This record gives sequence, structure tokens and C-alpha cells, in this order.
Amino acid sequence: MSFAMDSTQVEEAFPAPLEDFRRQVNEKLRSSVDAVEPPRLREAMAYSLLADGKRIRPTLCLLTYEMFGHDVSIALPTACGLEMLHTASLIHDDLPAMDDDDFRRGSPSNHRVFGEGMALLAGDALLAYALEFILRNSGSLHPERQLGVMAKLIEVVGPSGLSGGQALDLDCQGRDEVDPWTVEEMHIKKTGALIEASVVTGAILGGASQDEIARLTTYARNLGLAYQIVDDILDETSSFQEVGKEVGQDRAAGKWTYPRLVGVEKARERVRTLITRAVEELDAFGERASMLRWAAGVVSGRAAA
Amino acid sequence: MSFAMDSTQVEEAFPAPLEDFRRQVNEKLRSSVDAVEPPRLREAMAYSLLADGKRIRPTLCLLTYEMFGHDVSIALPTACGLEMLHTASLIHDDLPAMDDDDFRRGSPSNHRVFGEGMALLAGDALLAYALEFILRNSGSLHPERQLGVMAKLIEVVGPSGLSGGQALDLDCQGRDEVDPWTVEEMHIKKTGALIEASVVTGAILGGASQDEIARLTTYARNLGLAYQIVDDILDETSSFQEVGKEVGQDRAAGKWTYPRLVGVEKARERVRTLITRAVEELDAFGERASMLRWAAGVVSGRAAA
Repeated sequence: MSFAMDSTQVEEAFPAPLEDFRRQVNEKLRSSVDAVEPPRLREAMAYSLLADGKRIRPTLCLLTYEMFGHDVSIALPTACGLEMLHTASLIHDDLPAMDDDDFRRGSPSNHRVFGEGMALLAGDALLAYALEFILRNSGSLHPERQLGVMAKLIEVVGPSGLSGGQALDLDCQGRDEVDPWTVEEMHIKKTGALIEASVVTGAILGGASQDEIARLTTYARNLGLAYQIVDDILDETSSFQEVGKEVGQDRAAGKWTYPRLVGVEKARERVRTLITRAVEELDAFGERASMLRWAAGVVSGRAAA
Repeated sequence: MSFAMDSTQVEEAFPAPLEDFRRQVNEKLRSSVDAVEPPRLREAMAYSLLADGKRIRPTLCLLTYEMFGHDVSIALPTACGLEMLHTASLIHDDLPAMDDDDFRRGSPSNHRVFGEGMALLAGDALLAYALEFILRNSGSLHPERQLGVMAKLIEVVGPSGLSGGQALDLDCQGRDEVDPWTVEEMHIKKTGALIEASVVTGAILGGASQDEIARLTTYARNLGLAYQIVDDILDETSSFQEVGKEVGQDRAAGKWTYPRLVGVEKARERVRTLITRAVEELDAFGERASMLRWAAGVVSGRAAA
């Protein structure tokens, strides 16, 4: 199966279109906050938003859009908005009151540079600006489609997404025991929801049918959960150089993760199961879904590395 | 002029409909977060949201809606969303990294009860949930109208609203000198934007014309700025018992306010000018705008108290 290839192999197999997506996203992001006032807030927003990142969420959105639509520029504002939401959540997660991380993407975290107050506001501002930026650049879209995208992204930020997942994480820290379902719910909200929204907004913008959206939702939910488990595996097995942030901190902070709950090997097994389920949903799309299959392969490959 | 009456007189003149609005808003708010998960996040959100408040923003929204529409229940979800946004900003403002306030609405502030991390997340969650709650309860509205409301509220949270105003505030603290225009911009973003949105969303939901929305925007912008100046005057002249939070802290924190910049008397004069401008915009609406005139009178009355 193609998704069992390791990440280097698959990256070599599909280099050009993804590099092009990443370039387009980075270019659009660079100009996205130019007009933001006041200046100090703009600097804080831009510092984290324009830091080197893999742009996984925008790429998933564009890849999914391309299965249905032709003009990728239609989905580009939403792709950028997804990266803004992701960045906002990273800024807040790194704050001393949360994970207290000093580094992110290989550089000092936002509050280390701009102070806690400004970092808090930069996160708030990016949460809203993501939606503002999408709306402002989606004037040509049918209002129903714009509302569909808004509703999905708003849900991602709220209690059933990022903030709910983080709250569960915070609430479980220091507990002696947590059941696997709670850990899974936490991961689905904390990471899965935004990955899911990346795929689903791409599908909505491309005009996918309800049935297609349902299949892609299942694909993305499984992929997103697998992605978070891989992240936690890497936190236990990698170095600072490899991931660009401090590692081994989850366990030190008393956080509950899959590897802590069941061990690294069982966690890898869970990743394989989730990726298989994700890829099964793509059968109905045939060749059109080859890039989404590839994305699942990359996650699978990182877990095995 | 009616708006020169003091607040007791005008409150006596229009008691019933406002008390009824407040009751309807409180009732809807009480059930609004019942289904939120996880439980600890719900508790933190509900703690601040359901604290006793004047519900000024929801009331302004409903009053404006009533000038155009008939069925107030149409505007009630948006009215509640406005209160959620306001509450979210209060929770974040009170955090140690921001204003470091221990009390709010007469009770311990959110982070004093739930911890800084959970308070941060309760704020994030309420920002998003405000929009989620409105969308979920506005299914019967035309998509264009829903989008108009969303766009206005999203702008309020972003750099041109709450987070931008707070960033400017933070940036000016400790400076030796700040010009009046910067202080005014800060107030317009920090307080004016949400007051403006309360009125404008009411107008959008009621089906007001572009010209009517423009007039009401000017009314609300002036009212909102006046409201913030009055708040700052009261911070210098009132007691804890009167306002339900610690007072005299703005000056102690090196914050820039109108009273600090020009003194309490000149600040009161500015309030009068702003209220006069606000009320002028209501002429075109005749008797329909009597409650908005009354609202302006209350702000005017608080300044004179």
C-alpha cells in the first residue's frame, strides 16, 4: 500500500505541487497582516505567523479543494486562515499559564519576545483575524458556502475544538489515572478538529456533496488523531534539533499521551490502525484522492521513523 | 433635551421593557452553555458569563432591533453572543499578564477561581462560542444577514476591535506622554467597537437600510467612546462598592485615560460633546429612536453623577 512508504520516499514521489502550495501560502501570509494596526500587535502576530512552518493544514485544504475545484486561489484565503488559527493556538499553548514553552519552530516563543500580555493578545487577534481575512477575501463566493466555512472554523476554536481540547489536557494533568477515551477525546479536539476542518473546508469550497464531505470528515478525523499520536511519540523519541522545540516535556509536565498510556509500540500500532481507516474512506474517490493518500502515508512514515 | 436628564430620572421613565430584555437575555444565557464540554471549561465559562451584569450590549442590540423588526426572539441569540464576547474580553483583561484584577462584578475574577490556564481557555472558548451560538440559533435568517452579523462581530474581536485596543493600551502603559488621538483610538477599539457592533447587528437583523446603518454606526461610536470615558472618570471618583471592582488602579498601573490626560472636568465636557453628536444622528428616526436617546441620557447622567 502506498501509505506504508516512509516519508522520504513519498516526499520524493510528489515534490512539485506541494512545494508550490507551500510557496503560495507563504506568499499570501506574508502580505496578510501588512495593514494590521497597532504596529506592536502586528509585529507579534507576524513573528509567529511567518515563522518557518510545514503549512500542513493549508496544504491539506488546498489538496482537498483540488479534488473538486479548479482555481486554487479560491481556497487560498481559507488555507491561510487555517494557518492563522493554528498559530494562534500555538501562541496561547506556549504561555507560562499553559505549557510554558520557551521555544517554538526553533525560535523563542512569542511571549519570550513580546511579553505575556502581548502574546495573549496576538493569539486573540489571530483567532479573529483568520476569520476576518477569509471573509474579506471571499466576496465572490456564494454566502451559503462562506457560512459553511465560517461555521466549521468557529467550531474548531470553541469548546468542541482547540479550547475544549486544551481544557481537557489541563484538567487531566497531575491526575494519577486517565482512561484512553478521555485521552482520545482530548487529541481529537486539540489537534484532530483543525486537521478535520482543513480537509472539510477544502471540500466545501470545492462544492463537494454531503456524502463526500462525510467520507472526508472520517478520513481527516482519523488522520488528525494519528497525527497527534505521532507528535507524542516523537516527543518521547526525538531531539530538539529534529522537531525545533523542547522535547520530553509532556511526560515531565504530567501530561497524558498515548505513548505514556500504552507505550510507544502500542501507540505506533494505533497510528497504523487509524491511517488504514482514514485511507479506506478515500476508495470512493479513486485516483482523485492520491494526494490525500500520500498525506496519510507521510504521517504513517513519521510514526515508523 | 431628554438626554440631559440624570440616570435615575430616565430609568424611572422607561423601566419595564428594559427589565424585560434583561430577563430574556439572562434566561437565554443561563441555558446557552448547558451542553458545553468538557465540564471544567463549562464551569469557567458559566462563572463569568452568568455573573450579575447590566447586559448593556445585549440591551442596545435588542433596542435597535426593535426600531425595525417585530419578533425580538430573532435578535436574542446575537444579543447573548455580544455578552459572551464582552465576558471573554473581561476574563482576558483581568489576567495577571494584562490588568491583573482580582475582582470583577463584585466577585473574584475568573483566574482567581479557575487558575490562569483555564481562564485563558474560557476566554478563547467564549470568543468562539459567541459566534457558534449565534450561527446555531439563526438558521431561519437569510445567509446574507447572518454573514453581515458574523463579519461585524469578528471585526470586533480582531485588531480593529478588542485585541487591538488592548494592545494599544499595553503599549502605551509606562510611556511619559501619549497624544489624545492615540488614547481615543485605544478607547474606540477597546470599548467603542463592541458597543457599535451591538447597535449595528441589531440594525442588520432588523433589516435597516445602508443609510440607517451608517447613522446608527455614528451614534454608537460616539456613545461607546463616551461610555469608556465615563468608566475612566468613575475609576477616579468612585468606591469599590459603587462599581464592583477595584478602583484607582488605572492611574496606579500607568494607564492612559481621558481624565489623566485632561482632568476630570474636561473629560466630562468631552462626554457631553460626544453624547450630543450621538443623539443628533437619531433625529432621522424620530420617535422610533426614543430608547436609544434614553440610553445616551444614561451615559450622560453617569458622567455628571
